[in-house]
Amino acid sequence: MTIYCYSLLDESLRNNLSEALQPHHNLQFRTETTTVDESLAAFKTADYILGNPPVEWFSNASDNLKFWQLDSAGFDQYASVTINESVKVANMGDWFARPCAESIVGGVLALYRGLDTLTLLKQKSEWIGAKLRAELKILYKQNVVILGAGTIGLAVNAILKGFGCTTHLMARTSREADLHSKEELFTELPFADLVINTLPGTAQHFVDQTFFSKMKERSVYASVGRGSTTDEDALIDVLQSGYLDGAVLDVTEIEPLPESSPLWIMENVILTQHTGGGHSNEHMGKVDLFLNNIFAMENGGNIVNEVDLRKGY
Amino acid sequence: MTIYCYSLLDESLRNNLSEALQPHHNLQFRTETTTVDESLAAFKTADYILGNPPVEWFSNASDNLKFWQLDSAGFDQYASVTINESVKVANMGDWFARPCAESIVGGVLALYRGLDTLTLLKQKSEWIGAKLRAELKILYKQNVVILGAGTIGLAVNAILKGFGCTTHLMARTSREADLHSKEELFTELPFADLVINTLPGTAQHFVDQTFFSKMKERSVYASVGRGSTTDEDALIDVLQSGYLDGAVLDVTEIEPLPESSPLWIMENVILTQHTGGGHSNEHMGKVDLFLNNIFAMENGGNIVNEVDLRKGY
Repeated sequence: MTIYCYSLLDESLRNNLSEALQPHHNLQFRTETTTVDESLAAFKTADYILGNPPVEWFSNASDNLKFWQLDSAGFDQYASVTINESVKVANMGDWFARPCAESIVGGVLALYRGLDTLTLLKQKSEWIGAKLRAELKILYKQNVVILGAGTIGLAVNAILKGFGCTTHLMARTSREADLHSKEELFTELPFADLVINTLPGTAQHFVDQTFFSKMKERSVYASVGRGSTTDEDALIDVLQSGYLDGAVLDVTEIEPLPESSPLWIMENVILTQHTGGGHSNEHMGKVDLFLNNIFAMENGGNIVNEVDLRKGY
Repeated sequence: MTIYCYSLLDESLRNNLSEALQPHHNLQFRTETTTVDESLAAFKTADYILGNPPVEWFSNASDNLKFWQLDSAGFDQYASVTINESVKVANMGDWFARPCAESIVGGVLALYRGLDTLTLLKQKSEWIGAKLRAELKILYKQNVVILGAGTIGLAVNAILKGFGCTTHLMARTSREADLHSKEELFTELPFADLVINTLPGTAQHFVDQTFFSKMKERSVYASVGRGSTTDEDALIDVLQSGYLDGAVLDVTEIEPLPESSPLWIMENVILTQHTGGGHSNEHMGKVDLFLNNIFAMENGGNIVNEVDLRKGY
C-alpha cells in the first residue's frame, strides 16, 4: 500500500507516522520530493493520501486511491472534484472546533474588554486603564445569533452559555438550531447584540448588505467560518458608517488580507488571521486520525469523520 | 437628610440621582465643591454617602452618618476605619463580578490564542497567521484552580465551565469551594494548567515564591483580585526563568504600574490595567443601588449588599 503525505509535518511527527505504519506500507512525504512533478507522481500512485493537495491534481487522481484523509474541517474547494465513488474521504471532524470557538470568542472579548487597546498601551508602557472603563462592554446576558450549527457553531454555543448569553443557532436542517430559514433569521437579527458566523464556504455571500441592514445598530459581527460567506465590501460599509460597533474576523475573502484593505486600519476590527483552528497539538491530531482511519480501512472498521465531497460539508 | 456624593458621576447621572431624590433630601456632589476643605465639610455633615472617600477623612466622620454606599466591591483599605456601629455600610456586591471575570478570561484567551501578537501585527498590516498556529493553546479541558469563591471567583467558574474546564475553587469557608486550606491547595496546584486569583486585599502576598514553586511548569497565572495578594517580585522571577508560560494581571502591587517594572516589556504578560470591573453601565449601577438602599433605609427595608467594614470583605 502506497501512502502519500501532502501535509507538511515536522520531523518528529514524520517519525511518529513512519514508525506506526506496517512493513506493507510504503510512505512518501511531500517534503521528500523536490519538484512538483515528483510530488504529483507520488500522488498519482497512492492508495492513501493525507492532506489537501491542489484541486487541479485530482484531474489525474490515482486509480489506486482508496482513502483520502483531509487535514482540514472544510473542503468546499473540492466540490468540483470527481473521484471514484468507492474512495472514502474523511475530514478532521471537530478537531478544530474548540480552537476556532476559543479564538472567535477571545476576539469578541478583546473588542468588548479593550484588550487590543491595552496591548498597544503596554507597548508604550502607558497605564491609563481607568479612562477606558466606561467604553467596555460585557457578553453577560447578551443575545447572540450563531450562523451554522456544525462543530464550530456548537462549540461557540457551549462557551457562550457559560457567559450567560441567550443564543439562537441558524441552520437549515440541524436539530440544534432554532432558526431554519433566512426569514426566521431576519426576525431575530434585529434583537441580536452579536452575530457569530461559522458557516461553511458553500454559503457564498450569505452575509450581505441586506443581512447587515437587519442587524441591530451598535451590534458586533464576528466570522470564523469561511471568508467567502461574508460580503466584505458590505461589511466595510457598515463599519465605516458607524452602524456596527465592530467586527472580529478570523477569515477574509482574500487571504492574506490585501494591504490595501481598510480593515487593517479600522480600530474596531480584530483580525485573527485564520489562526482560529490552530493549537500546539494540531498536526499530531492529523497523524493520529489518519493512522486510525488506515487501520479501520484495512481491518473492516468504520472510518471516523467520513464526508461526502460533493455535498461540500 | 444630607447626602454627599463623593463618586464622580457624569452630568446625566448626576441629574438622574437629583431627580430621583425627594424634597427632604439635600444633595451635594464632590464636583460642586472647589476645595478639599469644602468637600470635607460636606462629608462631615452627611447622613448618606456615596463613594469611597480617602481613609483619613473618617477620623472626622459625621455624627449624622447613617448609611455609606461604597462604590466598589473591595474595601480592605477601610479596615482601620472606626465609625459608629449603627452606621450601615454596603458595597457593590456582584456588580463588578461579571466584567472582572470576562476581562480576566479574555486576557487568558489573548495569551492562549495569540491575540496580543495579532494586535501588534495588525498595526503593521502584516498577515503571518499560519506561522502562529503551532504556538496556540486552548482552555478546553484544562484544569484550573480559582483562588477565592466570592462573586468574581464564582463568575470565573461559571465561564470556565462553558470552556469545558475542570475547576477547583479555594476558599477557607465557602461551600462552593473544594479546597479549604493551603495544604489542600498545594496538593492540587501541581496539576493546574491555569491559576486565577480573585482574592480580596486581606490575603497579603498569599501568592508568593513557595506558591509559584508548587505550580506546574509552563502553567499560567492570572490575577484580578487585589495586587497586594501577589508577591510581584516572585512572579517576575518565575516569568523571567521561563518556568511559567505567562501571566495576565488586571491588578499590580503599585498602580499605575511603575515604568521601571519588567512586566511592561515581557512578551508573555497581559496587563489589563485594573479595567476589569469596568463597563459602560458601571456608574449607572452605583446610582441605582444607592437610591434603592436609601429607600430601604427610610422605609424600614433591608439594604442590599450590607457588609462589615472590619471584616474587610
